[in-house]
Amino acid sequence: VEIDADGRAISVSGIAKGAGMIHPQMATMLSVITTDLAVPPGDLDALLRAAVACSFNRISVDGDRSTNDTVLFLASGASGVSLEALDPGGRLAFGAALLRVCTDLARQIARDGEGATRLVEIEVSGARDEREAHVVADSIARSPLVKTAVHGGDPNWGRVLAAAGYSGAAVDPNTMSLSFGPDDDAVAVVAAGLPLPFDARAASERLRRDPVRIALDLGLGDERATVWTCDFSAEYVAINAHYTT
Amino acid sequence: VEIDADGRAISVSGIAKGAGMIHPQMATMLSVITTDLAVPPGDLDALLRAAVACSFNRISVDGDRSTNDTVLFLASGASGVSLEALDPGGRLAFGAALLRVCTDLARQIARDGEGATRLVEIEVSGARDEREAHVVADSIARSPLVKTAVHGGDPNWGRVLAAAGYSGAAVDPNTMSLSFGPDDDAVAVVAAGLPLPFDARAASERLRRDPVRIALDLGLGDERATVWTCDFSAEYVAINAHYTT
Repeated sequence: VEIDADGRAISVSGIAKGAGMIHPQMATMLSVITTDLAVPPGDLDALLRAAVACSFNRISVDGDRSTNDTVLFLASGASGVSLEALDPGGRLAFGAALLRVCTDLARQIARDGEGATRLVEIEVSGARDEREAHVVADSIARSPLVKTAVHGGDPNWGRVLAAAGYSGAAVDPNTMSLSFGPDDDAVAVVAAGLPLPFDARAASERLRRDPVRIALDLGLGDERATVWTCDFSAEYVAINAHYTT
Repeated sequence: VEIDADGRAISVSGIAKGAGMIHPQMATMLSVITTDLAVPPGDLDALLRAAVACSFNRISVDGDRSTNDTVLFLASGASGVSLEALDPGGRLAFGAALLRVCTDLARQIARDGEGATRLVEIEVSGARDEREAHVVADSIARSPLVKTAVHGGDPNWGRVLAAAGYSGAAVDPNTMSLSFGPDDDAVAVVAAGLPLPFDARAASERLRRDPVRIALDLGLGDERATVWTCDFSAEYVAINAHYTT
């Protein structure tokens, strides 16, 4: 990602490796992010932690959390520009560029999950606070029943609502609304707790698109969170049953 | 299960139905337990709760918790004997018979899990308290990586220790010991945190027996807990990807 700082180009780049044993905090992954901006170590650390919280720590492949992970953020200063020299707008743009790189890599890791055929984006909105939105989204992302339903293109809304229900967050089935597909082309399947009549073929098609989008509105507040996962395939089992230690 | 009460036979019987969406508390299951002992409702309730806690609430097929479950305990009094008439030893025997029926049914549900080929018994010992032992056993039972390793007969001890590590319980890798197989014929793979040289073929064979036994000693105390699960197969994915809602 390149941003412009008073006419000088600053870049933020990254590479990452993942695949299995991916579940926050953080995942079996290695990632290196670089920038040619000059940034003091304390600022690098703070910026990276903020970006990781909403990217690498929001992905799940198998719910199996790793004991090993690394994300490094290196600043060379080769652009000749320093963070201190940026105006507030420039600093904001730099933080946004970092988040964009981290989110892009995190989504690639989820899509590249062992045996996965597509990326699944779970957005939970209408929560009382961001933590509860995250807890619900994480519970859905971890459910083998949701992930196998996506794999089979089965618009099984009951599994999504059940995973929200057992997440531990305070939810109310009577205020939940659910849709499958991108916002501008979604198929609504539940509205305020009531199952809607819907075109099963269209809903199934939404679950076969990459990325798959599952949008659950809890109907309780204004906060939201997004978690990325992947579908669960027989290939995942084959890979992990026959992996030699 | 039949027990003898002063020369009169009392029976405890049960039936259960499960398969998928099995995770405490409790599971998508239906179960009815019956006895011909006369038992007051309050005692029936207390006895059943105690037995369920260590049986139906200790199984996991896919970590997906159900919103629907039932276990009923019915006492007909047809034996002509009442709980009040039993001496302390008889009451103990009755409670043990109930626990045996519940545990037997719970194990059958786990073995009969969707796509499962065998029962997996995870015993965690050496815990500071029983709750922590349960948390660790549950984390191992829920791990897709452990369950696929069992399916493939892969003695992947690292996955078991990792699941204990991320369980949330306070564990110490340096005091953990792990073995695969029944107590009188187990293959030790880790002792006090150190990986042991072991016969991979023998360890793999232990993971192909039904039931599979995984015994983890945390080395921190005297408490223990057992959780039953099953292996994770490609058939589980096939069943749940193509289930029509």
